[in-house]
Amino acid sequence: MKFSQTLIPTLREVPADAIIVSHRLMFRAGLLRKLANGLFAYLPMGLRSFRKVEQIIREEMDAIGALEIKPTVVVPGELWKESGRWDSMGDALLRVKNRLGGDFVVSPTAEEAFTSIVRDELSSYRQLPLALYQINTKYRDEIRPRYGVMRGREFVMKDAYSWHTGDESLDETYQKMGKAYRRIFKRCGLTVIPVKADSGAMGGSGSEEFMVESEIGDNTLLLCKGCDYAANVEKAECKLDFSPRFTLNAAKTAAASTPAIEKIDTPEVKTIDDLCTFLKTPATQFIKTLIYRAVNVELDLSGKSSIGGVISGSAAPGSAKLERKRPAPGAPEVYPQAFFAVAIRGDLDVNETKLAAVLKAAEVGLASDVDVVKYTGAPVGFAGPVGLTGIPIIIDNTVTAMNDAVAGALAKDLHYRHAAYGRDFEAWMTADVRTVKAGDRCPICGGELYEKKGNELGHIFKLGYKYTKSMNVNYLDENGKSHTPTMGCYGIGLDRTLASVIEEHHDDSGIIWPASIAPYHVIIVPIKYDGAMKTAADTLAADLEKIGIDVLLDDRNERPGVKFNDADLLGIPYRVVVGDKNLGLEKPMVEVKRRREKENRLVELSKAAAVLAAEIKTELAELNA
Amino acid sequence: MKFSQTLIPTLREVPADAIIVSHRLMFRAGLLRKLANGLFAYLPMGLRSFRKVEQIIREEMDAIGALEIKPTVVVPGELWKESGRWDSMGDALLRVKNRLGGDFVVSPTAEEAFTSIVRDELSSYRQLPLALYQINTKYRDEIRPRYGVMRGREFVMKDAYSWHTGDESLDETYQKMGKAYRRIFKRCGLTVIPVKADSGAMGGSGSEEFMVESEIGDNTLLLCKGCDYAANVEKAECKLDFSPRFTLNAAKTAAASTPAIEKIDTPEVKTIDDLCTFLKTPATQFIKTLIYRAVNVELDLSGKSSIGGVISGSAAPGSAKLERKRPAPGAPEVYPQAFFAVAIRGDLDVNETKLAAVLKAAEVGLASDVDVVKYTGAPVGFAGPVGLTGIPIIIDNTVTAMNDAVAGALAKDLHYRHAAYGRDFEAWMTADVRTVKAGDRCPICGGELYEKKGNELGHIFKLGYKYTKSMNVNYLDENGKSHTPTMGCYGIGLDRTLASVIEEHHDDSGIIWPASIAPYHVIIVPIKYDGAMKTAADTLAADLEKIGIDVLLDDRNERPGVKFNDADLLGIPYRVVVGDKNLGLEKPMVEVKRRREKENRLVELSKAAAVLAAEIKTELAELNA
Repeated sequence: MKFSQTLIPTLREVPADAIIVSHRLMFRAGLLRKLANGLFAYLPMGLRSFRKVEQIIREEMDAIGALEIKPTVVVPGELWKESGRWDSMGDALLRVKNRLGGDFVVSPTAEEAFTSIVRDELSSYRQLPLALYQINTKYRDEIRPRYGVMRGREFVMKDAYSWHTGDESLDETYQKMGKAYRRIFKRCGLTVIPVKADSGAMGGSGSEEFMVESEIGDNTLLLCKGCDYAANVEKAECKLDFSPRFTLNAAKTAAASTPAIEKIDTPEVKTIDDLCTFLKTPATQFIKTLIYRAVNVELDLSGKSSIGGVISGSAAPGSAKLERKRPAPGAPEVYPQAFFAVAIRGDLDVNETKLAAVLKAAEVGLASDVDVVKYTGAPVGFAGPVGLTGIPIIIDNTVTAMNDAVAGALAKDLHYRHAAYGRDFEAWMTADVRTVKAGDRCPICGGELYEKKGNELGHIFKLGYKYTKSMNVNYLDENGKSHTPTMGCYGIGLDRTLASVIEEHHDDSGIIWPASIAPYHVIIVPIKYDGAMKTAADTLAADLEKIGIDVLLDDRNERPGVKFNDADLLGIPYRVVVGDKNLGLEKPMVEVKRRREKENRLVELSKAAAVLAAEIKTELAELNA
Repeated sequence: MKFSQTLIPTLREVPADAIIVSHRLMFRAGLLRKLANGLFAYLPMGLRSFRKVEQIIREEMDAIGALEIKPTVVVPGELWKESGRWDSMGDALLRVKNRLGGDFVVSPTAEEAFTSIVRDELSSYRQLPLALYQINTKYRDEIRPRYGVMRGREFVMKDAYSWHTGDESLDETYQKMGKAYRRIFKRCGLTVIPVKADSGAMGGSGSEEFMVESEIGDNTLLLCKGCDYAANVEKAECKLDFSPRFTLNAAKTAAASTPAIEKIDTPEVKTIDDLCTFLKTPATQFIKTLIYRAVNVELDLSGKSSIGGVISGSAAPGSAKLERKRPAPGAPEVYPQAFFAVAIRGDLDVNETKLAAVLKAAEVGLASDVDVVKYTGAPVGFAGPVGLTGIPIIIDNTVTAMNDAVAGALAKDLHYRHAAYGRDFEAWMTADVRTVKAGDRCPICGGELYEKKGNELGHIFKLGYKYTKSMNVNYLDENGKSHTPTMGCYGIGLDRTLASVIEEHHDDSGIIWPASIAPYHVIIVPIKYDGAMKTAADTLAADLEKIGIDVLLDDRNERPGVKFNDADLLGIPYRVVVGDKNLGLEKPMVEVKRRREKENRLVELSKAAAVLAAEIKTELAELNA
């Protein structure tokens, strides 16, 4: 392709809102233009790389037997009502009414559309496992789109879904997907951090996120200095720095030598910091108690089901009065709203994602001041587990080890001291709801954990029965008995993957593409596109294209410096300069420079095509290995 | 690919709403499933063929130098307001409000998005001509989607747009596109009828539609039995069966021997048929006069511009009182509403599309009865050109030849006879607004015209300045002077193209794919997938795949009859049956049958891959020639 015959509007200036490197370089190198906030058009150079990412993903999905299909981008709202996500998805879901008043959704993901197709086609266990995928346009109505395509409104996602007769089969596909994802990112030249992710409100039982390190990442990751443990803070665990006491007897025994609990005056003391100063005691000696409001709680609070951490048969205080309902036919029963007290060691924070997972709640958040007063009978700042009734108390595991603690006394300016778990208060449930942070110990090897910001490129996820149950999917087993299949889902964002490659591969002069997704492998720059230089450049381009190498020929009538700068900015892996001087040597030569290296070298013109092709094929083979 | 490892849910039953062959076969062969009315999901077999159509289109666009880009599917409503189409597009445009109250459109076409990109990048004449395209999802909110993907709501379109310094350059790209379109349809194995189409309200000056014959076609085509003239009825012309008299003098001369005009009583006569019966005269002797209401008329009625067919300097009667305004900055001035009387020979119909083109109106339609009374002073049925004032009279060319006609007398139960054009009445404008019909004469060779129903697969169109002016696109010429570029647009519907291939290539047993877009080239059917038959089938499949032939291997444990029926239904070009009997011959044989032929033949197993590959490559070469 000749430079003058394509559209590569390189820029010296950078749009004012382009903060991160990939956003700046995608605009400067003419890969992308903006149509509106969060809506971008790929120009020819950007689209070529985009399609290469797409093809790598397609090949790896096909290789593990996933089947590509193409549902629509606009899907019927009815399907989203069946799954319950019409209501639960919030404002990020772009809802549309058509001319006849029908409800539609511009898909942000496609669990419903795929499940509805499988529902109609699935009859026998012999059809399972089944894995389907699409690579298609998605829309998420981001309230603050930014960082270019890294967080745009419209984007392209590869989303795959699988259906299984049971957990073993689901796990097999899940593992295959995990391997395919590692290959996809490797082939794109990306260093990803696979992390244990929270499976959140989706009710799954296994999940892995593929992260890239990024200063503007949405996610906080905890990584171990000693081993390859990596987890999203939402799910990270740590080696305990205390001895939990999971039975009340153990707790009572530990409290035997603790002085009796007593009330103390704590005037003007409202925060843990105030308390530390006032009592001259470290925060580790305090119990922090917070009141949370949880929405759509699926956990059975009635005491009729056995739940880990809960004393068997113990109904949650106040739960008998809670409304409980089934949001849609087939969906599980939930408590639309419930309040919980959570007690944790004073130096730690409650992890709301862990808490939501424990409660199987769609959402949890701190209760309003009014609700705090209602449930604790005291102003904000004096909640504590001792004497607290009418609300279930969730005790973080750390508190089970506390047998001589300070805690709020449910009245203004009053605290308890010498409070002991098992003696002075009990839990409705014990659980791990602690936020792990840098400096905590790795749960695997005990090494020190540190934090990084990360951006999620992909996610594999054991969904379980959420969609197959609510959407009523069934198959018959060998004996003609009907079952619901279990399900997995697996996504990769293409735009974000492409931008992340630039984040990882660039320098001050521009992009440095890995050969696998470079828009062109070679850029040929004749000093002047004329005479012998033109002939040599044309011939070399034709020879390379014959071997299957993608070539861009800079035929513009520009100064060499301008062309060299653009070549660097565009990031084409190999640059070949064709100049009269080197062509005039006894053996005509061209100057070859690899974008990622500093030095250039002379290569015989007659051998240049073979040399370049060999080097590019070597790089491709390494990436694809 | 093994049959058991993909998803090909063939059906015996056909959905009740599947009326046309392609819709029936796409469902029966498992290419497609329905998500909702007008929204379909392509399953693996359908998607494979779809992608082959896509690739053919991409290759042909690239071959003529058009550059592929990828704007978004959801585009800002602001751009559509700039072009004026936010208002003019009607309810087929799917409008969306996002969470922040912003207006968006799910693109049905992308003139605005492309023009906005070019507006930002275009500075110099040296960048022109420029042709860009996308192959992307579109949405049209059809009120009555039907016939499967032939008229769906969401579909994929290749839409290209080009920008030029002038008409000559536009015409060059337009011609190239026309050739590329012919190649695309040929490569897909389609017989298309390229027809002169109306360029309607879009203000263009050249347009060609690529039609396929279809019983359920939206369009009426007029074709010549004697030559290759083909036109959409909206624009069709015909050889005149009369001698038009374009000057008043010629008309007056012709009327010299006509008796003086006189009023006659025509009680209870309201229609042309009534009149024919009452006066015992053929309809060709009558002048039919109709009152039309036109919306957004761009034609200058003030008499200040010279307009073909209008007596120079003659203002249209009543036009001085009409409102005239500019709907958007940069847009041309229009009359939001204007009324016209149209007189035509009694046996003919007025073609509203031609009339709209003559008036440069967005829309024309018959006036209401109230308006007819207002403008003619008589009940409906008695309009006529004689004595009609206060409204511009448009005289179809046929009427210029009428020098002894019957016409309405602008009063109940009264007509004129012996009315002569040029003597008894005049025109504000003469024009061709006649609907051509079967039996009329070809304008090229005089042969007889006949009608066909057609479906439009593609359209190439000289847009002119509509978008570049309203959206304010400019470039500088050699002398630094600013100009507005002219523009063309070129679309092909992919889904409809695919369905049309099935309409053209099928029999009672199923689809008969052309090799170029067959999901697989060869289906191998072992009588039983076991023992020697399994070995032979696997080896043949591997050998064919090595040569680049797409193979489907029917490994299912089904009766041969079921597998043969599915192979016919799926329409794979070559079927190879592997059976013990033929494998047991001295030279092991397999049975090869071409889907489009009746007979099968025995081919040596050892030569089968080479024989099949050669035949398929021959067919592909013919299609791609």
